[in-house]
Amino acid sequence: MVRLTRAGEYAIRGMIRLAKNGGEGLVLIADVAKAEGVSKSFLAKQFQRLVKAGLLESSRGASGGVALARPAAQITLRDIVEAVEGPVELNRCLAANDRCKNADACPLSPVWREAQERMLEVLSRVTLAYVSETAKKP
Amino acid sequence: MVRLTRAGEYAIRGMIRLAKNGGEGLVLIADVAKAEGVSKSFLAKQFQRLVKAGLLESSRGASGGVALARPAAQITLRDIVEAVEGPVELNRCLAANDRCKNADACPLSPVWREAQERMLEVLSRVTLAYVSETAKKP
Repeated sequence: MVRLTRAGEYAIRGMIRLAKNGGEGLVLIADVAKAEGVSKSFLAKQFQRLVKAGLLESSRGASGGVALARPAAQITLRDIVEAVEGPVELNRCLAANDRCKNADACPLSPVWREAQERMLEVLSRVTLAYVSETAKKP
Repeated sequence: MVRLTRAGEYAIRGMIRLAKNGGEGLVLIADVAKAEGVSKSFLAKQFQRLVKAGLLESSRGASGGVALARPAAQITLRDIVEAVEGPVELNRCLAANDRCKNADACPLSPVWREAQERMLEVLSRVTLAYVSETAKKP
């Protein structure tokens, strides 16, 4: 179960690269992709999602230059993961659009909810600024 | 990301049925499958994994009768989920068999580890006895 996908991983890596670039203007997706050893088309797809979520700004579509849309200290790992992977739902019974008819009587629903909240608390607390500053320069 | 699969869900449901049966001997997988509205072959596959993990005993292979291998108070949700889904690894960098060469310098690895531990604490704390007693009779 429960595994960050490659999409989420490269979205985070790409965001760290952009955070390290600071306020030095737009960065080409091709350059980030090359530095991370991943295809430009794959990374561009993730960056499109980050643009859509308001975490990135792009100059001319997500295939052009990109920059953080707000300070790295105001972007959390949860923001990035959910932008790329969608809302975290440890069990489908927690999905907003899938109201389980047994939810009120179900002893499991509150367990999944608590497990999910504990996990998300951690991802909500860690900012892009923190992981970028801690990460060693490549 | 992060979603209990149908396999895990039906493993838990099946185990709750067996827990409710108490010490009343073996239960036929076919009966549990019928009660849960799932195919016998699918449920038998999950039960085989639970037998392998030492959570279930079976009379003649996993297609026959099954019973809990130990008291429901000594089986946790984590036991069941991991038996069916494998070890929970929020990120592949946490996998025991995939030692990331950057782990020491990586600022993300401890974040994933903490998020995973918080989540697993909840699943480790909740026993099959608890969810079986709380669950309404069908």
